[in-house]
Amino acid sequence: MQTRQAEYFGAYRTIRMTRDAKGVLVVEFHSDGGPCTFSAQHHTEVVDAFHRIAQDRANKIVILTGADGDFIIGVDWNSFGDVSDPGVWSQIHDEGSQVLENIANIRVPVIAAIEGRAYIHSDYALLANVIVAAEGSTFQDVGHFAVGVTPGDGIFTTWSYRAGAGRAEAFLLNPRPLPAATAYEWGVVAEVVPNGQALTRARELAALYLKAPEVTRRDTRIHFIQPLKERIVREVGYGLSLEGASSAALLRSKAKNEAA
Amino acid sequence: MQTRQAEYFGAYRTIRMTRDAKGVLVVEFHSDGGPCTFSAQHHTEVVDAFHRIAQDRANKIVILTGADGDFIIGVDWNSFGDVSDPGVWSQIHDEGSQVLENIANIRVPVIAAIEGRAYIHSDYALLANVIVAAEGSTFQDVGHFAVGVTPGDGIFTTWSYRAGAGRAEAFLLNPRPLPAATAYEWGVVAEVVPNGQALTRARELAALYLKAPEVTRRDTRIHFIQPLKERIVREVGYGLSLEGASSAALLRSKAKNEAA
Amino acid sequence: MQTRQAEYFGAYRTIRMTRDAKGVLVVEFHSDGGPCTFSAQHHTEVVDAFHRIAQDRANKIVILTGADGDFIIGVDWNSFGDVSDPGVWSQIHDEGSQVLENIANIRVPVIAAIEGRAYIHSDYALLANVIVAAEGSTFQDVGHFAVGVTPGDGIFTTWSYRAGAGRAEAFLLNPRPLPAATAYEWGVVAEVVPNGQALTRARELAALYLKAPEVTRRDTRIHFIQPLKERIVREVGYGLSLEGASSAALLRSKAKNEAA
Amino acid sequence: MQTRQAEYFGAYRTIRMTRDAKGVLVVEFHSDGGPCTFSAQHHTEVVDAFHRIAQDRANKIVILTGADGDFIIGVDWNSFGDVSDPGVWSQIHDEGSQVLENIANIRVPVIAAIEGRAYIHSDYALLANVIVAAEGSTFQDVGHFAVGVTPGDGIFTTWSYRAGAGRAEAFLLNPRPLPAATAYEWGVVAEVVPNGQALTRARELAALYLKAPEVTRRDTRIHFIQPLKERIVREVGYGLSLEGASSAALLRSKAKNEAA
Amino acid sequence: MQTRQAEYFGAYRTIRMTRDAKGVLVVEFHSDGGPCTFSAQHHTEVVDAFHRIAQDRANKIVILTGADGDFIIGVDWNSFGDVSDPGVWSQIHDEGSQVLENIANIRVPVIAAIEGRAYIHSDYALLANVIVAAEGSTFQDVGHFAVGVTPGDGIFTTWSYRAGAGRAEAFLLNPRPLPAATAYEWGVVAEVVPNGQALTRARELAALYLKAPEVTRRDTRIHFIQPLKERIVREVGYGLSLEGASSAALLRSKAKNEAA
Amino acid sequence: MQTRQAEYFGAYRTIRMTRDAKGVLVVEFHSDGGPCTFSAQHHTEVVDAFHRIAQDRANKIVILTGADGDFIIGVDWNSFGDVSDPGVWSQIHDEGSQVLENIANIRVPVIAAIEGRAYIHSDYALLANVIVAAEGSTFQDVGHFAVGVTPGDGIFTTWSYRAGAGRAEAFLLNPRPLPAATAYEWGVVAEVVPNGQALTRARELAALYLKAPEVTRRDTRIHFIQPLKERIVREVGYGLSLEGASSAALLRSKAKNEAA
Repeated sequence: MQTRQAEYFGAYRTIRMTRDAKGVLVVEFHSDGGPCTFSAQHHTEVVDAFHRIAQDRANKIVILTGADGDFIIGVDWNSFGDVSDPGVWSQIHDEGSQVLENIANIRVPVIAAIEGRAYIHSDYALLANVIVAAEGSTFQDVGHFAVGVTPGDGIFTTWSYRAGAGRAEAFLLNPRPLPAATAYEWGVVAEVVPNGQALTRARELAALYLKAPEVTRRDTRIHFIQPLKERIVREVGYGLSLEGASSAALLRSKAKNEAA
Repeated sequence: MQTRQAEYFGAYRTIRMTRDAKGVLVVEFHSDGGPCTFSAQHHTEVVDAFHRIAQDRANKIVILTGADGDFIIGVDWNSFGDVSDPGVWSQIHDEGSQVLENIANIRVPVIAAIEGRAYIHSDYALLANVIVAAEGSTFQDVGHFAVGVTPGDGIFTTWSYRAGAGRAEAFLLNPRPLPAATAYEWGVVAEVVPNGQALTRARELAALYLKAPEVTRRDTRIHFIQPLKERIVREVGYGLSLEGASSAALLRSKAKNEAA
Repeated sequence: MQTRQAEYFGAYRTIRMTRDAKGVLVVEFHSDGGPCTFSAQHHTEVVDAFHRIAQDRANKIVILTGADGDFIIGVDWNSFGDVSDPGVWSQIHDEGSQVLENIANIRVPVIAAIEGRAYIHSDYALLANVIVAAEGSTFQDVGHFAVGVTPGDGIFTTWSYRAGAGRAEAFLLNPRPLPAATAYEWGVVAEVVPNGQALTRARELAALYLKAPEVTRRDTRIHFIQPLKERIVREVGYGLSLEGASSAALLRSKAKNEAA
Repeated sequence: MQTRQAEYFGAYRTIRMTRDAKGVLVVEFHSDGGPCTFSAQHHTEVVDAFHRIAQDRANKIVILTGADGDFIIGVDWNSFGDVSDPGVWSQIHDEGSQVLENIANIRVPVIAAIEGRAYIHSDYALLANVIVAAEGSTFQDVGHFAVGVTPGDGIFTTWSYRAGAGRAEAFLLNPRPLPAATAYEWGVVAEVVPNGQALTRARELAALYLKAPEVTRRDTRIHFIQPLKERIVREVGYGLSLEGASSAALLRSKAKNEAA
Repeated sequence: MQTRQAEYFGAYRTIRMTRDAKGVLVVEFHSDGGPCTFSAQHHTEVVDAFHRIAQDRANKIVILTGADGDFIIGVDWNSFGDVSDPGVWSQIHDEGSQVLENIANIRVPVIAAIEGRAYIHSDYALLANVIVAAEGSTFQDVGHFAVGVTPGDGIFTTWSYRAGAGRAEAFLLNPRPLPAATAYEWGVVAEVVPNGQALTRARELAALYLKAPEVTRRDTRIHFIQPLKERIVREVGYGLSLEGASSAALLRSKAKNEAA
Repeated sequence: MQTRQAEYFGAYRTIRMTRDAKGVLVVEFHSDGGPCTFSAQHHTEVVDAFHRIAQDRANKIVILTGADGDFIIGVDWNSFGDVSDPGVWSQIHDEGSQVLENIANIRVPVIAAIEGRAYIHSDYALLANVIVAAEGSTFQDVGHFAVGVTPGDGIFTTWSYRAGAGRAEAFLLNPRPLPAATAYEWGVVAEVVPNGQALTRARELAALYLKAPEVTRRDTRIHFIQPLKERIVREVGYGLSLEGASSAALLRSKAKNEAA
């Protein structure tokens, strides 16, 4: 089993994985080792990575985090190609819904450790059971309505699920940095810790959870994630189709403006 | 298209509609131009009005508001006739569920601008994506449990969806004015503004949303409203049937008491 | 009808029932008259008791409370027998889902009056429409993750429904006493009252609700509980199966450790 | 346990129960020992009876059947009182949804043995896992649309679930006797047997099922009934409210016609 | 009320409406009076027409049929414009889901009378409670997979609901004319009649249904359509988005081929 | 991409994969090259295999079939180990629900080609869009109730979805070989072909489907499978937990009998 783990741990250019002797796996999103700017390669790799993570029963707890003091800070738009091409968007649609299902199907407790900016795909973090956020960290959605695109990739579903629909709608329509303290008041963040301490605290919680038997840990995750998993399965595919249409419309209107 | 707009804008006695050059439609509930006391005529007109508003693609943003410093202040009970007659209630049932579906099917961003009393059909406001409320405004439900009737017309579904079920149940069973500030803490109201400024702020938000392409705006509304629309479709018809039975029971018990 | 009431009021060793002239039924969980430590006998009796309570139309309002200054304080583990025996767990599974459905099917307003510790089966209280809690009361889950078992019996479903999923997950994974004031902020508790006053306040609310006609009261409960009832029906059977597997795994690991 | 069984077996005037040494319980609907004409007393007794049957773990298999060569042949309308009184209908509503949930919650295999006419509450039979029907038996709905009432009490939900919605709608709107052979073609009836042999064949199937362990039998029932149980919980309460409104409307129109 | 009826009866170029003294409304799809070839104008007009039909309580029964011996025979593709333009598709998406909801919301019994070819939008017919089909009539889907487009506009949802998913998938993937007799065996068609007799038989059924009180008729429709309405609300919006993406892909691949 | 395909095609001992130049992938279940007897290794490998198949966009159509004239003929019970150990069952549970989701997530048309015996995991075949069955082929479930275990792994969900619940329940409780012709009548099988021709016909259908653009093919699969996928997500995890409890109970009762 060791061989196989080693294999997929090193299979991705955009995700760093380390696992301690207790089976606590830390999954770190990055771009060339620095803060993660989300690209098409990330988008493709997370699908496979989270499926393998979920299937590997040597993972006892999974911690999601970012690199270098941030969670995910932005998007490398060009890497996604011509998103108005239905063939291009078809792949984004399929990967985008699959990755959320794959994270939901990690059948051990998942903890998100947030430092700095969670500006893109905070939905990945909201699929954790518990979010630990540094006091200086902020949540925002810089990749959708702010740039003229429908927030359909799970960002609404997860924020609506954890913060309530009213807050989620206002947050996504008028995106501004949301402090960790507010996310805590909203019930999204479970614990606010000093800057730089999110991963440390996540490891403490992992140690606490490890006291329960493995079946208990797995079955607790299964039970807790089920309602959100069902919402993802019902809502995100459609959401991504709407987002694709809105992206194509945006490109068209830009092209028209440039032509004019 | 201008002709057609003009036509339905002027088709209702209880709803005033104005639309600016950008396509921001302001829908104002009123009674003879003053604060709106909800009558059977309102109940019938809103069904048709919101269907036409939803179908008219010249509407780019919809703002819901009340007249003369209030949202809706009360009910004109007599106008509804003998609600213990199943034929009479059948119409109320059908209109009552249809109107909520029609508002949900407005496929552009909807903003509610609340001043003063939102004492009746605050569910219409909670079908907006964002509620802007004046600091002196208050929410209450003076039309159901307070007068002996089951709150089944969507008031529970919408408050439960946006405020959480525990708060909604207590709010509806023991109805007292709920200040805008509390509704903000509950995640129902997105922004609290000085008295008299709700519509102004709603227009500012509308201008902000208009920066996104039209398909993006439409598809964002479609995506955001879907979970609430599904709850309305599942819950409100039954709720209105239960409300009808409770209304009939109330009239009977009053008749008995009077006879005695 | 008086005879029949008397009959089931006295049919249980673990539940005390008293009903006033207005039909307000107080249901008190106890152990030999003192604070309730939940045993297998409680587990079996609540199923039958709540079905009869629900069917008896002489009950106009139901108040759930505990004995002697506490709600429920702990579990008598031994009384449940060998929970790793599938036959034993089958009964726990069946009773565990049935009792929640039976409480949900009480078709009159239900109020929970909480004093002291609500450390076990606070899910029963969260099936009330309104919770009145003494300021010194605390909520906790001492019967699941804290002892190595999946919280699958409805405790997650009800807390998730009323407090939001993020709070529920953190609360159940790292169980510590939650003050009534925090439960109020979360929207779970409707009113916080001085210690010793929960039942008194519950009776006041009951008197208030009794002003509405009976059909109104019944139909309001039916309408309000429906979404939670549907979640219970979908989630709790599976949750109890997962809890059963985790319990069996826990016993096995303990047996191995002892053998070693 | 024997004493307790004896107790509820004899508790009902409209239901005869016999249980063999293997735990096969035969539940027979009757009217004074003859073919069952459904009355208000049946309606009340089935609720309690099926809850007790479901809770009694000495029942290993349950067979539903009618008396004297018929399943249920008609309705004793007068026994239900003034169904246009919301208080009267409230009880019918509550019992009518509760009984279907209670049958669904029988957590052992349920077999229906149908002889003669299944003209009322064939929905009870369709809650069985398997229906054995005599070749001369027929299904019909003489209690709803044929007499001017909405078929809302579960008859549509169960027929739609087992026969398909198209067939169910036509069957209920234009009710004529449906031969067992057609019900077999539709997938509703599992086996057609010679007249007089339905109960015998049901007992043979019971013996076959008894070869599986008890937990297997219980869990198979739980798994198989879950989708139908969820539909009942979602649909039947509302259906009964609509049926109540239609009954009240029918009485009103009759009264008007008589007055004229 | 007569005036108002007259108004919308004559408001559409593609739909002919006639209503008899009993309130039986016949809605006939046509193209210039002959067999209906579905165009963009039909697509827009049906939305408004069915909403008005549904709101007009003078309609007691609604019969859907085609003109001149056919139901709907084909599509006028050019009339829809450039469907790869997201703005164009946005309108098709919105109208396409709205029209099905509007038909579902006709709250009186709906009967479809099918002669000849039902080759496009047989989903409209499958939203009826009962379909009467001439023996020579055939069902097919010439507008989707056969021309390279995803059948996402409700055709799968309705056929899957009434015929079963397996039949619906094979029918739509390999579209060939399906005889009325087969549709009858599948439970989709309720009655097969001689050619030319479908409307006559539909009128007979209408007369039969009219014997029930109005509230009964309305509430029966409401109850029967609810599960299909919920499926439409959940499935068709997404289906239309997928269909839009597939249409855009088709046009692109044609353009490429032509360029090559 | 060729290298990567080659890699996973050869990664499994129990699944043979071949793909033609058009991208039609044939997936063949086998045991050492002969008819497939399902073992724990199959159970583990299908999870990974179907995820990779689904992610590999070079697969344009997927055909599922068995080896050597049969689909799947039996179970290698011993390979699964001590299924009464909750840790062992936990893995079966997780794999068992994951594999069905992974097949459902194959986003291109899936065809099942059935020869001979489909006696185990016919649910895999029922996740295809279309089933082609040889006239001599038969369906049965030899792995559940027949051996004393609850059929909870998706076999009920898929048969209920495609054949109707009544047929599925009878089929699974009293398992006997079901001829292809009957499965065709039930709407489960789309086409019956001469023995030995199933794969050939499946390839013909594949060629037909390939005429549609790729996005159309993918989006059609996505749309068609969605309702079944949602049922799997809701039902199968719980079903597998119930099946696990029943398996443990079976082993216990066997052990007792042997001890006696």
